Amino acid sequence: MEAASVTARQQTERLRYVPLDELRRMRALDGDPIARAHAFADACRINILYMIMRAGSGHIGTSFSSIDIVAWLHLEVLGPGDVYYSSKGHDAPALYSALIGTERLPFEKLHGLRRLGGLPGHPDIAATPEVNTNTGSLGMGISKAKGFARAARLRGERRRVWVLTGDGELQEGQFWESLPQAANEGFGEITAIVDHNKIQSDTWVEEVSDHGDLEAKLRAFGWEVGRCDGNDVRALSTAVTELEARAGDHRPKILVADTVKGAGVSFMEPRELARSGTALYPFHSGAPSAEQYARALAEIEARLGERLERLGAAPARLEPEQVPPRAAPRNPQRLVAAYGEALAEEAEREERIVALDADLYLDTGLIPFRERFPERFVECGIAEMDMVSQAGTLALSGVLPVVHSFACFLTPRANEQIYNNATEHTKVIYAGSLAGLVPGGPGHSHQSVRDIALMGSLPGAALIEPATDDEARAAVRWAVREAAGPVYIRLVSVPWELPFELEPVAELEPGRGRLVHEGAEAFFVTTGPVMLSQAWLAAERLASEGREVGVVSLPWLRAVDGEWLGEVTRGARLVTVDNHYLEGGQGDAVLAAAAPRGQPVTRLGVDRVPVSGTNDEVLRAHRLDAESLAGRIDE
Amino acid sequence: MEAASVTARQQTERLRYVPLDELRRMRALDGDPIARAHAFADACRINILYMIMRAGSGHIGTSFSSIDIVAWLHLEVLGPGDVYYSSKGHDAPALYSALIGTERLPFEKLHGLRRLGGLPGHPDIAATPEVNTNTGSLGMGISKAKGFARAARLRGERRRVWVLTGDGELQEGQFWESLPQAANEGFGEITAIVDHNKIQSDTWVEEVSDHGDLEAKLRAFGWEVGRCDGNDVRALSTAVTELEARAGDHRPKILVADTVKGAGVSFMEPRELARSGTALYPFHSGAPSAEQYARALAEIEARLGERLERLGAAPARLEPEQVPPRAAPRNPQRLVAAYGEALAEEAEREERIVALDADLYLDTGLIPFRERFPERFVECGIAEMDMVSQAGTLALSGVLPVVHSFACFLTPRANEQIYNNATEHTKVIYAGSLAGLVPGGPGHSHQSVRDIALMGSLPGAALIEPATDDEARAAVRWAVREAAGPVYIRLVSVPWELPFELEPVAELEPGRGRLVHEGAEAFFVTTGPVMLSQAWLAAERLASEGREVGVVSLPWLRAVDGEWLGEVTRGARLVTVDNHYLEGGQGDAVLAAAAPRGQPVTRLGVDRVPVSGTNDEVLRAHRLDAESLAGRIDE
Repeated sequence: MEAASVTARQQTERLRYVPLDELRRMRALDGDPIARAHAFADACRINILYMIMRAGSGHIGTSFSSIDIVAWLHLEVLGPGDVYYSSKGHDAPALYSALIGTERLPFEKLHGLRRLGGLPGHPDIAATPEVNTNTGSLGMGISKAKGFARAARLRGERRRVWVLTGDGELQEGQFWESLPQAANEGFGEITAIVDHNKIQSDTWVEEVSDHGDLEAKLRAFGWEVGRCDGNDVRALSTAVTELEARAGDHRPKILVADTVKGAGVSFMEPRELARSGTALYPFHSGAPSAEQYARALAEIEARLGERLERLGAAPARLEPEQVPPRAAPRNPQRLVAAYGEALAEEAEREERIVALDADLYLDTGLIPFRERFPERFVECGIAEMDMVSQAGTLALSGVLPVVHSFACFLTPRANEQIYNNATEHTKVIYAGSLAGLVPGGPGHSHQSVRDIALMGSLPGAALIEPATDDEARAAVRWAVREAAGPVYIRLVSVPWELPFELEPVAELEPGRGRLVHEGAEAFFVTTGPVMLSQAWLAAERLASEGREVGVVSLPWLRAVDGEWLGEVTRGARLVTVDNHYLEGGQGDAVLAAAAPRGQPVTRLGVDRVPVSGTNDEVLRAHRLDAESLAGRIDE
Repeated sequence: MEAASVTARQQTERLRYVPLDELRRMRALDGDPIARAHAFADACRINILYMIMRAGSGHIGTSFSSIDIVAWLHLEVLGPGDVYYSSKGHDAPALYSALIGTERLPFEKLHGLRRLGGLPGHPDIAATPEVNTNTGSLGMGISKAKGFARAARLRGERRRVWVLTGDGELQEGQFWESLPQAANEGFGEITAIVDHNKIQSDTWVEEVSDHGDLEAKLRAFGWEVGRCDGNDVRALSTAVTELEARAGDHRPKILVADTVKGAGVSFMEPRELARSGTALYPFHSGAPSAEQYARALAEIEARLGERLERLGAAPARLEPEQVPPRAAPRNPQRLVAAYGEALAEEAEREERIVALDADLYLDTGLIPFRERFPERFVECGIAEMDMVSQAGTLALSGVLPVVHSFACFLTPRANEQIYNNATEHTKVIYAGSLAGLVPGGPGHSHQSVRDIALMGSLPGAALIEPATDDEARAAVRWAVREAAGPVYIRLVSVPWELPFELEPVAELEPGRGRLVHEGAEAFFVTTGPVMLSQAWLAAERLASEGREVGVVSLPWLRAVDGEWLGEVTRGARLVTVDNHYLEGGQGDAVLAAAAPRGQPVTRLGVDRVPVSGTNDEVLRAHRLDAESLAGRIDE
């Protein structure tokens, strides 16, 4: 839901947050530490809401389900040298609010969620040295815990490590892969807490891929297991104490904390959410509307007031902040939606199509398909490797599997499985959305800028990145009707406005694209809507300086028809603009296609780990915005 | 142990196998099907031994532990339409012997294990349509089973799927990732059998990464679990019947079959193998010696005779076959050994070094390190993702982790984890052995020809592929002492003889290599010993035709000093030779470095899924042997 959310809060104007002096006052209150932690957690909820509203996106449901745990750990539990992090990472607003509230992070960072120089959408140690490790790719938490604890052991020390995990996250194989060694080596330093809010990205965990008896599983893996209400700090505190006593020093511990997604705001809790498998939980990510914001804030503020009153303290004073509305794109390309509609259409005539999903069926455009062909829709949960290997034998059995996830997870996480399928010379279609640098908010765990390299060496595969809705539809048709082997369809998710009109295309011609802007001395060569629009704007800017620079949009990755490209650009210098790392990106392919004809190529692209920020900030920081491109034309 | 094994059987001369008419006779014997299956399994053992001796390599321990199961399934259990495959794949000789013995595969294939046009080292449907899916990458078996069963369900049918897994294999996260959906969707069609022989690649499973209570784990995941002696066909048969009765139609079943690695040959069974964590089981892969062969054959033949006698039948007649001895390289480069020694040396002075292994510590050169620094050696089991993420936080904590596995598993399987580490800007050294096309025996699951592409887009990383032992040592020193960020060291494992003398090098200069053969009109540019030797021989061959073609050996992947290369080759045409797919290989990098100077580049490399065969056969089939290279110089 990253992509769809960035424009959701245009109406918002006036936000409120709990200022630092008020947070200090709450932390200093005498009385029951449990009650104090609950009050502090609600103050954090107000600030989480503020951060996400201001950013226009963020994961509110999981931030609210986990904040009681996170607040309590940061107030009462974590000692010097202790390590805490969330394995899932998308509850970063909860972490940030607790770090800010306990003055481990400068307060002004509160205003910078998902902004350049502020707080990245997922924790990143380069941007925020106060966090302990980069998270956002699921399932790595326990492995990372062992590394922290082991490093201390090597120094002859014992370091406590606290890891928060999601519950949907436990569908990832790496989680289970990481458990046995911790038990075998007696990593009693590790305490994992499962934020068991029962809802993953799309809907109920039990509808997506039920865990069954989770406690029995964890116990069978040799961990000491506890269970408690994770939104009740007293229950939590007691459960941890008991768990530690039972486990002793040499047994890793895991606490299944039953929480409520969106906890603390009645209408964000999934009280009415149907257990149908198709009902979507609406507050997984994205910012609430202005009206929802006002209602949520009022509810939390009232409860916080009551909590403070019970502690003998005055109500919290909130600081107002005026935030200018953000402009939404007017007539954007919505590639994922177009893709999803086209897939459903193709499925009408091609009965062999089966769609597989890894808990992102909203974000990968699968709603139309699932509605029309529920029996041909396979929900795999957050289990990309499993999904891909399963697709392999479906293909061997005469099915045409179409596999979906975000590009940043599908292509690296299931890479060996994708290759194994390719060695069987079957046809599997892989659709990777959320490709490229933008949206810039979520940060580098979600910015897929390696997928061309990861899929480029797949033997016999075709790689397509459409720039427009009709190209996305044509890509689906080509993949279903024409392709002989595997196809990777790379999709930018964020709705993106093109600053010019383009003729609709009915079909794609392998290796070829379109001349979008006339030129003479040089031509930008782009794939996808983001770089196409930036290159076009750069060409216009250069034209105003009297320079004739054109733009070619080329939806075929790697397989470039060099002859066609040479003709259409009349042998002029080419400047490739990769929405991807330079290494292994489309620039390499254009160079290889152009070199035999002696056509010079300059390659531009991402040359360092992507920053997190607004889309404009990110493009500018990587010198891939129109202005930068215009300036780099002579590089 | 793939690499070390290919030269092990030079002494062998006279082999014996059970011919087809004898196999038919045994299958047709009246009497107890259980006794018949045991006899047939022993006949298969003789043929497994023959195939592996003839090939000079193959996994004998697991073929023997599983053959009773495999034989019984193929004789008595599998019905029309049933699917069987082994998830681990390296027990392929057992599968082939059973397929041949039941005439599902042509008998003459018996003579072609690991030969071009014969039977690949791991099952491959392109080479052997009689097998059901490509295996050899671990942990994919249950996922694949769901695909087979689901495809049938989509057709309104019910298809039984039998999967054999290893026990070491269960350390892979994908196995656990694949279990819940099968339980949730009631895949009663699936029966998994764990060949629980207690020993993985290096040694005892319980020493490498103990499973604890395996049955409890599997049960907790919602599968119906059985257990039996897997080398006792009667016990096996009973256990499956009982398991099926308990499970009913809608519950997936898994049978933990307690087997003995090397079962059926007393000295191949690990009766004396110490449970020390460092004692290596010697019959995991590779061919036995001639003396061992003779002893093993005598033992099996005698037992088979007794079994047949009890069935009232005559002893088996074995067919002799004379096999010419294979030449071993005389003075080969042994990069992995050189690497391992250099790592241990560096660890003497650099105390931060910690080595991590994924059950390949013999094959990744780690014996010297482990012997000298047992406390700095971390055995992770077959858990590459877990190993890499753990290395990440070790690095964050001031350790210098050096991560080991085969290149074909490390770089695709843990790709997202490697990237996550890179985004933390820490230094982790990744050593991937078994890189490239050869050894050609194991087949494409083990021929790593995508790793440059998979590691090439890693921001801030250096990639090095040494061609000689001293370059391997220099690569380690550079990685430990000089590198600022992550390093990938790509190592050819097979001992490889260079047909010329090279001055030893003390250190590597980033981006640069060596002029190994003078030239004028063109220069081959290679990395690693295999392509270097082929290019050098091609240059000599061309010289005899009066053509002046040189050779440059360049150990730096991706980061090529184009100016240096242009000088040393005086701007002549470059012909890159990639021990890797063309796409995303070193050719792309050389092209990018040479293009700005207008130096023409022809790129040669692997252009289709690698074939399995002897090293010579494989190089020739891919037109990357010396003769082919000489002929392709003008491409």
